[in-house]
Amino acid sequence: MPEKKVLFLDMDDVMADTAMAFLKVYNAHFKTSYTKESIKQGTVWEDEIVKNYREIRGVIFKPGFFRAIPVMLGAPEVVEALNDKYDVFVASAAMEFPISLKEKHDWLNEYFPFIHWKNMIMCGDKSILKGDILIDDHLKNLSVFDGRAVLFDGIHNQHVEGYERVNNWAEVGKLLL
Amino acid sequence: MPEKKVLFLDMDDVMADTAMAFLKVYNAHFKTSYTKESIKQGTVWEDEIVKNYREIRGVIFKPGFFRAIPVMLGAPEVVEALNDKYDVFVASAAMEFPISLKEKHDWLNEYFPFIHWKNMIMCGDKSILKGDILIDDHLKNLSVFDGRAVLFDGIHNQHVEGYERVNNWAEVGKLLL
Repeated sequence: MPEKKVLFLDMDDVMADTAMAFLKVYNAHFKTSYTKESIKQGTVWEDEIVKNYREIRGVIFKPGFFRAIPVMLGAPEVVEALNDKYDVFVASAAMEFPISLKEKHDWLNEYFPFIHWKNMIMCGDKSILKGDILIDDHLKNLSVFDGRAVLFDGIHNQHVEGYERVNNWAEVGKLLL
Repeated sequence: MPEKKVLFLDMDDVMADTAMAFLKVYNAHFKTSYTKESIKQGTVWEDEIVKNYREIRGVIFKPGFFRAIPVMLGAPEVVEALNDKYDVFVASAAMEFPISLKEKHDWLNEYFPFIHWKNMIMCGDKSILKGDILIDDHLKNLSVFDGRAVLFDGIHNQHVEGYERVNNWAEVGKLLL
């Protein structure tokens, strides 16, 4: 039997609905009512949110934020199926927020208990990943990956081109299962 | 200018003198007085320590153990020099002990403040590392690495053959600087 292909999955805004948790904090602070869909359709991301972000950075990255992020719709079921077909690794650029490291480990154990600790990677720069497929929402990560790079649609990457784009986990399933 | 080579450094028993910290706990518990040198010269590692290890596993991996490990002699100076010549990443198989993740991050910041968080990797299985050189004390990590694999001498790897062996950080410096 041939070896399984190595598939890397990003956490924030791929497995975890980080934008949802972010917008909850953002909307409460700035008395706005943005949704992921409204942001994708307009220019408020570049025009306003990116500029205001620093003001609430301390609120967002306080203890407990990462542990409480909701799981992305459909992710547990599709990842469990992918885990049979591929050698699945979760790769999160988490080192910027050391407090998040254990929270992210515990979060994975809650929603993806079938992911062994051997298959978890907390790093800072994804250029060191050796494998076949990467699903990520950031151009900076996809652009340094040697294998097949798949862009997971998010509020901040609407203008990224040149990559296969998946809009949700159902589409990931169709593409890779 | 050509790109710098990517150099991965293991933490436990390479950058950090984990065996020293381990033996302190072991000797106190079992009323022994083993040193790293005495273990390397005899067969007590296989005959006794590996068998007794489970009894003190809970003591070893309690909060604070990793944060208090002494730095390996000469490591900070040589790693700082390597960091100019190579693209140095610290790669620790730390995911087995989630409590250690932040401790290891904080430990690195204390002894190796010039290592950026982007260059820290906490993983479980080093087969996913893409780079040029790996310095590690475990055969299981060296054997799955595609590049140049260098064995750092330790009490548990005296019988490993087939790899370049370095006995200390002065020898690492001679080999790679």
